[in-house]
Amino acid sequence: MDAEIIAVGSELLTPLRLDTNSLFLTEKLNSLGIEVRLKTIVGDDRRRLAEVLRAALGRSAIIIVTGGLGPTEDDVTREVFSEVLGRGLREVEEIRRQIEQRFRQIGRKMAAINLKQAQVPVGAEWLENSRGTAPGLWIEHNGAQIILLPGPPRELKPMFEARCVDRLTRIVPQGRLVTRVYKVAGLPESEVDERIAPLYKPYTNPVTTILASPGEIEIHLRATAPNEEEAEKLVAELGRKIEQELGRSIFTSCGETLEAVVGRLLREKGKTLAVAEGSTGGRIAERLTRQPGSSEYFLGGVVCYSHESKAQLAGISPDLIPSEGSVSQPVCRALAEGIRRKTQASLGLAVTGLSGPSGATTEKPLGLIYISLAGEEGSEVREFRFTGERERIQELASQTSLNWVRKKLLQ
Amino acid sequence: MDAEIIAVGSELLTPLRLDTNSLFLTEKLNSLGIEVRLKTIVGDDRRRLAEVLRAALGRSAIIIVTGGLGPTEDDVTREVFSEVLGRGLREVEEIRRQIEQRFRQIGRKMAAINLKQAQVPVGAEWLENSRGTAPGLWIEHNGAQIILLPGPPRELKPMFEARCVDRLTRIVPQGRLVTRVYKVAGLPESEVDERIAPLYKPYTNPVTTILASPGEIEIHLRATAPNEEEAEKLVAELGRKIEQELGRSIFTSCGETLEAVVGRLLREKGKTLAVAEGSTGGRIAERLTRQPGSSEYFLGGVVCYSHESKAQLAGISPDLIPSEGSVSQPVCRALAEGIRRKTQASLGLAVTGLSGPSGATTEKPLGLIYISLAGEEGSEVREFRFTGERERIQELASQTSLNWVRKKLLQ
Repeated sequence: MDAEIIAVGSELLTPLRLDTNSLFLTEKLNSLGIEVRLKTIVGDDRRRLAEVLRAALGRSAIIIVTGGLGPTEDDVTREVFSEVLGRGLREVEEIRRQIEQRFRQIGRKMAAINLKQAQVPVGAEWLENSRGTAPGLWIEHNGAQIILLPGPPRELKPMFEARCVDRLTRIVPQGRLVTRVYKVAGLPESEVDERIAPLYKPYTNPVTTILASPGEIEIHLRATAPNEEEAEKLVAELGRKIEQELGRSIFTSCGETLEAVVGRLLREKGKTLAVAEGSTGGRIAERLTRQPGSSEYFLGGVVCYSHESKAQLAGISPDLIPSEGSVSQPVCRALAEGIRRKTQASLGLAVTGLSGPSGATTEKPLGLIYISLAGEEGSEVREFRFTGERERIQELASQTSLNWVRKKLLQ
Repeated sequence: MDAEIIAVGSELLTPLRLDTNSLFLTEKLNSLGIEVRLKTIVGDDRRRLAEVLRAALGRSAIIIVTGGLGPTEDDVTREVFSEVLGRGLREVEEIRRQIEQRFRQIGRKMAAINLKQAQVPVGAEWLENSRGTAPGLWIEHNGAQIILLPGPPRELKPMFEARCVDRLTRIVPQGRLVTRVYKVAGLPESEVDERIAPLYKPYTNPVTTILASPGEIEIHLRATAPNEEEAEKLVAELGRKIEQELGRSIFTSCGETLEAVVGRLLREKGKTLAVAEGSTGGRIAERLTRQPGSSEYFLGGVVCYSHESKAQLAGISPDLIPSEGSVSQPVCRALAEGIRRKTQASLGLAVTGLSGPSGATTEKPLGLIYISLAGEEGSEVREFRFTGERERIQELASQTSLNWVRKKLLQ
C-alpha cells in the first residue's frame, strides 16, 4: 500500500527549514509495510495546495498532510480540503469546548480566530491533540485515507502514535517492510554496482538502492512480506549473495559508521590505536572520539600539520624531513612507528600528503597521500592518488586509513 | 518569477535522508529574486517522476531537478525527461571523452555503464561537472527553464554557481533579495533575542530570522527591493543597530565559519596556533584544517585523549596528573603551555574535560570542561559546565575555545 506526504508551510520553502516530520512518519509507515512514494512541500498557498491534493487523490491510498491547521490566516489546510473534497465545514461543539478550556487553563483570553480550529469538513473524524489546540483530522474519501496532522513535531508525533498507528494497522493488508543497510569501503561506486547488479537485478523484492559518498558506498535492501520473518528471509537471501561477492569490502550490514566498526574491533581484540595526522588534520581522531567509550582503545595522537611539528611532536628524526621531504614514504612510516612507540599503542597510524589547494609539485601532485600502519610485526606504507577538492581528499584519506585499520584487525 | 524543485532518489523517501540540496538552491534562487513555490521528492520511479514533471511543466517557469543523473540502473532522470519532453537522446562525443579521461586520471577501468552519462536529450545544453562524471543539463521547453543537476552536493553546488547563476540573472526580471547572516558566539539564544527583538520588531522588510545551534546563533536579515542597492540599504540600516547592540559577540556579518574567522585573524596578525585536545578529541584541529592554507598559521598539536598521552605527547610532568587528576586546571594549563613550547607557536590552546557518557564523579560532573590559552604574556585557564549529550558538549567546548582565541586576537 502506497502513501504520500504533503507538508504545508511557507517556512518550509525558505533556505532555513526542512520538513523533518516526514522522516518520523516514513519510519512509522515503513514499519507497517507502507511505502512512501512521494513527498511534496507546499507553501500556505490555496491554489497550489489544492493542485497538489487533487494529484494525490488520483494516485495514493494514504495521504498524510502536515501543517497549516493552526488558527491564523496563513493556515489554509482545513478550508482547501473542504473545497477540494466538496464537503462543507461544520463546527464541532466538543472541539470548541476543548479549545475554550485550554485557554482558561493557561489563563489567556481566547481570540475569536481560534474557533476556526473547531471547523471540520463534513464526514471527517477529528483526532484529539494532547499538546496543542489544533485537532488532527481523518477523512475517508473514495477509498483513500486522508490524515491531517498539526505541523509542530511535539504535537504531531504523539497524535500519530496514539490515534493513527493502530487504525492504519487494521486498514493495510498484512505486510511488513524490513530494511538492511550494507556499507562498503575501498571500492568505487561503479565497480560495486557492476559486481552486484547481476545479483540484485532478478529481484524486485527486496528493492536495492545504492548510495555513494567519498570513500563509502551504501547498499540498501528493502523487502516487504506478509510478516517480519518472511521479509527478513527475503532480505537475507539477496544479502547473502552480496556479502559473498563483496566479502570484506563490506564493513557493516546494519548501518554502523566506519569509526564505530573500527572501535568495536579494537575493543574486541583488546588492541589500542594512536594516530599521527598530517594532511587529515585531526579528522581521524575526531571520528574515533565521536564514539562514547573511545578512550578504552583510542590513546590519542598528534596533528603534525606543519613540517616542523612532524619532528617536534611525533618524535621523528629531524634529518629525515630535509632529505626526504615531509610528504614521503620514509617520513610517513617514521610517523606511524614514532606515534606507536610514544604512546605504546598496539597500532600506530600515520597520514601525510597534499590535500591542496597549494603545495603541489610535478613530482608530488595534489592528492598524493601516504598512509602507514605500524604494529608489532613491523610497518607498511601505501601510496594513494586521490582526485578532487581539498575536503574530498581529506575525507578519502581518513576513510581509507580507517578502512585499513579495520582490515588489519580482521586478519 | 516562480521556481519549483524536484529531488529525485529513492533514498530521499527513506527515514534516513532528507533533500538538503534544496536549501542551497533556495538561497541562491532567492538572492536572484526567484521564489521557490513547491518542492517534490520522488523516488527512482519512472512513472511518478514523469507525472511530477508533467505537473511542473504546467505551472513553473523554472524547474530545477536534482539527482538521478548517475551511471547506474537506478538513475532514470535523463530517460524520463527525454520521454516526457518528446526529445530523443543523443551521445555527446565531448562528454564521452571527458568521462574516459577522468577514469584514466584516477587509473581505474571504466565500466561501460558510465557512458550512459554521455547521453543527452536533443536540444539540451550540457553543464560541465568539475567534480564528477555526470554532467548537468539545461533544457528550454515551451518557455520554461529546466535545469538538471547531479545529486551529490559537492558536484551540484559548484555547477550551479558556475553555470546557472549568471544565466538565471539574465532571465529573471529585476527585483532583488539581499540576505545578511550574522553569527554570534558566547551568548545564549534567549539573551540574543531579548536584546535585539526591540530593534528588529518594527521592521517587516528586512525580515529577521534567528537560528540557534550549540554555541552559535545566526541572525538572518532578508530584504527585498527593486534593485540590489536599495535592498542592501534596508539590510544595512537594521544591521547597524544589531551590530551596535551585540558588538564583538558577533564574529561575522557575512556567514563565515568561526574557524575561518580565527584563521583570517591569525594570518592578519602574523600569529600561529597549536592545540592540545583532550575531550574535544581532534575537533578543533579538524575545524582549523578545513581552511585551505591553514598550514600558514596552524602548526598542529596533540590529541591527548588518554591520561597517559597527556604526559607522553604534550610533555607535561608525569607527576602532575596523579596529584591533580587529568581533568583539572593545572593539567589544562600545563597542556596549553606545553604545546606552545613544543611547537613554538604564538598561542597554545588546550581543552580537557568530561564529555561523557562515563567518567563523571560528584566533584567532577559530566560537562565539566577546562580551557586554557597560553601566549607570550602568560597563560589563563577557564572552567565551564556544559549540559547535554556528549556530542553537544564536544561541540560547545570546541566552539568556546575558538571563540576565546578570536577574542584574544582582537585585543
